[in-house]
Amino acid sequence: MTTITIADDSPFGLDNLPYGVFSTPGSARRVGVRVGDVVVDLARALDDEVFARPSLNEFMAQGYDRWVAVRERIRDLLHGEVDDDVVHPIGEVTMHLPIEVADYVDFYASEQHATNLGRLFRPDSEPLLPNWKHLPVGYHGRAGTVVVSGTDIMRPCGQRKSPDEDVPSFGESRRLDIEAELGFVVGTGSALGTSVSCGDFARHVFGAVLVNDWSARDIQAWEYVPLGPFLGKSFATSISPWVVPMPALQTARTETPRQEPRPLPYLREEQAWGLDIELVVEWNGQEVSRPPYRDMYWSPAQMLAHLTANGASSRTGDLFASGTISGAEKHQRGAFIELTWGGREPIEINGEERTFLRDGDEVTISATAPGPGEARIGFGEVRGRIVAATNTAG
Amino acid sequence: MTTITIADDSPFGLDNLPYGVFSTPGSARRVGVRVGDVVVDLARALDDEVFARPSLNEFMAQGYDRWVAVRERIRDLLHGEVDDDVVHPIGEVTMHLPIEVADYVDFYASEQHATNLGRLFRPDSEPLLPNWKHLPVGYHGRAGTVVVSGTDIMRPCGQRKSPDEDVPSFGESRRLDIEAELGFVVGTGSALGTSVSCGDFARHVFGAVLVNDWSARDIQAWEYVPLGPFLGKSFATSISPWVVPMPALQTARTETPRQEPRPLPYLREEQAWGLDIELVVEWNGQEVSRPPYRDMYWSPAQMLAHLTANGASSRTGDLFASGTISGAEKHQRGAFIELTWGGREPIEINGEERTFLRDGDEVTISATAPGPGEARIGFGEVRGRIVAATNTAG
Repeated sequence: MTTITIADDSPFGLDNLPYGVFSTPGSARRVGVRVGDVVVDLARALDDEVFARPSLNEFMAQGYDRWVAVRERIRDLLHGEVDDDVVHPIGEVTMHLPIEVADYVDFYASEQHATNLGRLFRPDSEPLLPNWKHLPVGYHGRAGTVVVSGTDIMRPCGQRKSPDEDVPSFGESRRLDIEAELGFVVGTGSALGTSVSCGDFARHVFGAVLVNDWSARDIQAWEYVPLGPFLGKSFATSISPWVVPMPALQTARTETPRQEPRPLPYLREEQAWGLDIELVVEWNGQEVSRPPYRDMYWSPAQMLAHLTANGASSRTGDLFASGTISGAEKHQRGAFIELTWGGREPIEINGEERTFLRDGDEVTISATAPGPGEARIGFGEVRGRIVAATNTAG
Repeated sequence: MTTITIADDSPFGLDNLPYGVFSTPGSARRVGVRVGDVVVDLARALDDEVFARPSLNEFMAQGYDRWVAVRERIRDLLHGEVDDDVVHPIGEVTMHLPIEVADYVDFYASEQHATNLGRLFRPDSEPLLPNWKHLPVGYHGRAGTVVVSGTDIMRPCGQRKSPDEDVPSFGESRRLDIEAELGFVVGTGSALGTSVSCGDFARHVFGAVLVNDWSARDIQAWEYVPLGPFLGKSFATSISPWVVPMPALQTARTETPRQEPRPLPYLREEQAWGLDIELVVEWNGQEVSRPPYRDMYWSPAQMLAHLTANGASSRTGDLFASGTISGAEKHQRGAFIELTWGGREPIEINGEERTFLRDGDEVTISATAPGPGEARIGFGEVRGRIVAATNTAG
């Protein structure tokens, strides 16, 4: 038997308890919870087969009351001694995609990001389109290419046409970018023909992850009218391995920025689900940005209410992301296209002038939120390295 | 033992043999093949557990060579006598969603449809956008709301704003429409970082279904810039229960219309996958349109090559649809917004002037293709009835 010790300043203390899917050499994937610098094997520690699965989906589908009860059981367990064989040092496990992604939706909820991209993509018109302050604009992305942090990202190929070219050509993206986002995981879905109100958010959404929505800006710019982004985004979306349960973010709740005009009734919140989470973006180990989630115009509860307002069903494993998180200051922008203003204002990375991603570059996004008292709630990180394209024949 | 008799003019003869998922009272869902007016229970007839499943996915994942072998075995079987208990009259079974949908993509491959919608949605600019003849424009839709033919379609609610209104309001869609399409089902996927060439289409795509991509035009028009259709489409997409295997469409293969400018190499086909399929659209039992699939500009092989050109993986159960099929003539248009020119030119249905769908309306889309000799290959139908919205609180 052993007692798990947690450093006082650990971002993975008893107020966090994020879930993930891990494996050890020779063993199958299964669900664990992270505490300090160890992973606790939940199937063994709680003697419950629902955690002996390669994704969180089966546990999430058991619903809100079970999520609350299991969180309490884990806390009780960690206050005492646990069997040695249920504890694995974080350095000795491999982390996997924590959920089986059902549908993936990406929103566009940062006013600063939408304004910046409007200026860059449509320089001759109003940056913010007329619908933007009335509804959380979003679109469906590719669920099958959501990958776990650490997965190499192959530079995508595709059609791109610069304004000075007459015809498009096929080849490697020359403007490969990141988008620093937060993602929300639906634990229990809603039936076709029903909607999830803002007030029901916590009963449906299990937790949050970090998202890097890799974006090929040249492919996107050429393809995206009139039906939206497609191949410019669909090649890969990375998520962090740890799903932070929504109750761990209770202390981080805050008001959203003032919403004017006042949203329609189905988008009004009695208690706002704004979140005071600070992200850090590192490019080859150098910090380039600190996007503040608290500045996001639309809350995740408003996103889910909108997503289901037409009666669309939701399912266990649905993932919806916030869209790029950008604040008002330059060092708060969550995409390189904004940080370098379309590539026209390079930034210095380790002594070099840089705009978009080169092969071999690595990007790491991490985040923390305030917990009770002095505690910080850690999200861990989402990390990815760019590797050269191999399917370049056009 | 019994011999299955097939009428000479049956669209479900031995050259078709579409797969579906059916149940009988008190029995679990399982895979069957349609022959004439009966469904053959394949798990029993072939003594193979892969067909005792509630979707085709496990069989499809076995790959092309198995698809060919099973088709041959079914033909051999049907030439002789079969056990009585493996045969069910079509009127005595319930049909279900044939596949577990992985990712759903909708293309926009009809030049006539894209031109018509461009004129209606963007009357002040060129109807066909600059990228349209260079690539098959497409976007991801909601996989979780793909439903089988016969499922009632609840009128969606959402935000809509007429040009003459200052602010949007929330409520039932007033411009509920159909889109008559063909859908293609991926049987065996492709790995992340690889692409499926046009020539490899038949080894990856298992078969085709009819699709009705229900569309709320008022919701769509307000929301769709800049990230594409979302709630205007995500409430429901209906597909036909029978998946017609691609080999059954060999006789229907034809050239696509001349593609000028010449597509980039990755979109060039040695043998075109144009398909001579004729659809029939009925509104409350009255034929209103005969959309010709042979006029589609981009072939399904080009769609899949494009979808994977950036290295995006594909999976068993991926569904990609063609987009609305519209021909040059008015009676060949596959959406009511085109048939009624944005609602300004009503058409007469059973003696009434009609534009968009009312509660209680039923739409049926059917299709046939030429088979060997005199044979016709039937797709059956995709059918849906509009029911009143119940979640109207905005």
